[in-house]
Amino acid sequence: MVKIVLDAMGGDRAPVSEIEGALLAVRDPGVQVTLVGPEHQLREELQRQAVGTEHALEVVDATEVIGMDEPVVQAIRRKRNSTISVGMRLVRAGQANAFISAGNTGAVMATAKMIIKTLSSIDRPAVAAILPTMTKRPTLLLDVGANAKCKPIHLLQFAIMGATYAQVVLGIENPTVGLMSIGEEEGKGNQLTRETHKLLEQSTVNFVGNVEGRDIYTGHVNVIVCDGFTGNVILKTSEGVSEMLLQVLKKEFFSSLQTTVGGMLVPSAFEHFWRRFDYEEFGGAPLLGVKHVCVICHGRSSGRAIRNAIRVAADLCQKQVPQRIEMELANLE
Amino acid sequence: MVKIVLDAMGGDRAPVSEIEGALLAVRDPGVQVTLVGPEHQLREELQRQAVGTEHALEVVDATEVIGMDEPVVQAIRRKRNSTISVGMRLVRAGQANAFISAGNTGAVMATAKMIIKTLSSIDRPAVAAILPTMTKRPTLLLDVGANAKCKPIHLLQFAIMGATYAQVVLGIENPTVGLMSIGEEEGKGNQLTRETHKLLEQSTVNFVGNVEGRDIYTGHVNVIVCDGFTGNVILKTSEGVSEMLLQVLKKEFFSSLQTTVGGMLVPSAFEHFWRRFDYEEFGGAPLLGVKHVCVICHGRSSGRAIRNAIRVAADLCQKQVPQRIEMELANLE
Repeated sequence: MVKIVLDAMGGDRAPVSEIEGALLAVRDPGVQVTLVGPEHQLREELQRQAVGTEHALEVVDATEVIGMDEPVVQAIRRKRNSTISVGMRLVRAGQANAFISAGNTGAVMATAKMIIKTLSSIDRPAVAAILPTMTKRPTLLLDVGANAKCKPIHLLQFAIMGATYAQVVLGIENPTVGLMSIGEEEGKGNQLTRETHKLLEQSTVNFVGNVEGRDIYTGHVNVIVCDGFTGNVILKTSEGVSEMLLQVLKKEFFSSLQTTVGGMLVPSAFEHFWRRFDYEEFGGAPLLGVKHVCVICHGRSSGRAIRNAIRVAADLCQKQVPQRIEMELANLE
Repeated sequence: MVKIVLDAMGGDRAPVSEIEGALLAVRDPGVQVTLVGPEHQLREELQRQAVGTEHALEVVDATEVIGMDEPVVQAIRRKRNSTISVGMRLVRAGQANAFISAGNTGAVMATAKMIIKTLSSIDRPAVAAILPTMTKRPTLLLDVGANAKCKPIHLLQFAIMGATYAQVVLGIENPTVGLMSIGEEEGKGNQLTRETHKLLEQSTVNFVGNVEGRDIYTGHVNVIVCDGFTGNVILKTSEGVSEMLLQVLKKEFFSSLQTTVGGMLVPSAFEHFWRRFDYEEFGGAPLLGVKHVCVICHGRSSGRAIRNAIRVAADLCQKQVPQRIEMELANLE
């Protein structure tokens, strides 16, 4: 039995999507979900969504909620009993195996460092985005979190964490690792990428050299490392491009097809496409390098995305990803 | 009459696309194009494409070609009579008003600094990408070129150059300028963005604060500045996402629509979409901050994209963009 703690107040539509997702997830055998949030509010929403089966989910009371745009340091100091802190304490105390939130990424990362704690051989945990590609295999990009300034050693640790994830979770034998830069030659890029290039070449990682933004979506490389500033810009840019393209295409198609039979099929094709893309991109991003499984979801996560994040978290627990990362890093020393 | 020098050997399909584009461009009244490249080869291709009208284009002989992936410093040193150098010398000598190439961006930038020269108040020229948005107005992103490491003062200069371009060329009154970062609050980002934020706030630029990757494509901000590493990653990532999405969508649509009447309309809707997107994204990126008009095209430019780049260059000449930038910067001192 895998026990998952879910911050019920994280996303834009909280607690509606969270409860939808949790109710879907507990249909899977072997998964228990504990919701953390204002108990009264959660019980009301549970009753609304699931009359009769509302007892499938445990509820732990926590009334303080950290907002999406709240400055992280002050928020954590002032709200010691936020849904994030209360949930993570349950994991630290051994009452649950994993923590999930669709809330403020910075607050989740900072609180995880304080409560769940960083693995002993890791300097900085990293958020790994699992991005869809032209192939069936996703690309892992890390860090997309908040490590704006990184040293080469951090990127080496990201590489090892990412490769371990790709191997253990995605089942990729000897995963390839690329370094995000602005040209394939070794000398290209900035000081960080040039120094990291040398370090990765000397490491045990299956390093394939510099890669460029286009390589993320071709699926030719399994893991791509970069500092958190670059990773976050990549993630937000990707979202922006896809939103724009789909909006423009939709308009284009509707205007050319609305008077035809085919026009009726367009919405379903989009729906189908979105499902695939949304599922893969927004299902949840693992926070790697902390002692327990922690998954960060997009603020706009639907119930389906939350359900998927719970599945991902359960899988990471069963595959003991934090322990595997610790082992890989121990081998390094 | 505007005289444009075109590097005929720049793009992936050179000189075919270049000659196609030039022949289209000279149909516009008031535009003359000079092709630079191996004379014999160019005359042959001209004859093939335009029997009878091949004299519409002037040809200047240059046999050395700098390859797309050639290391810039050595290439420039060894090939003093490359198509890029020969073409730029024509502009410097006053025999032409603007230079265009779809070749090696780094080589074009470095050669422009040496031959066309940087404006006296600019430390570093920048490549500005004109990106499509959800609105009819594009967003200007700079630098997307090769200034991997930038100081705050460089980003301020980029802001002024970008705003001048947006005003003079796109006709936007008092254009807004955003700073690419990873959160809207002033304290977010890395050292460069935090220091630049202060500088932009104190400047005469219409600064709207930090923006994120998603803001590029909404069209809410007219000009976005960042270092060349970040800008290049954004550009390549955007290309990668759109290629992937279009490939996946195409497959999705063809499989769901191929047996219907509507299926016959799908290719034309895509075609229409591509034309808009391709036109705007790959028409050419101005190199701002040098003494004469210089436009860099995508290596995969079609004849239509080259034609469009020639139009852009002619427009920049008529609107005296380099002189306007010099004036704006003089006011600053």
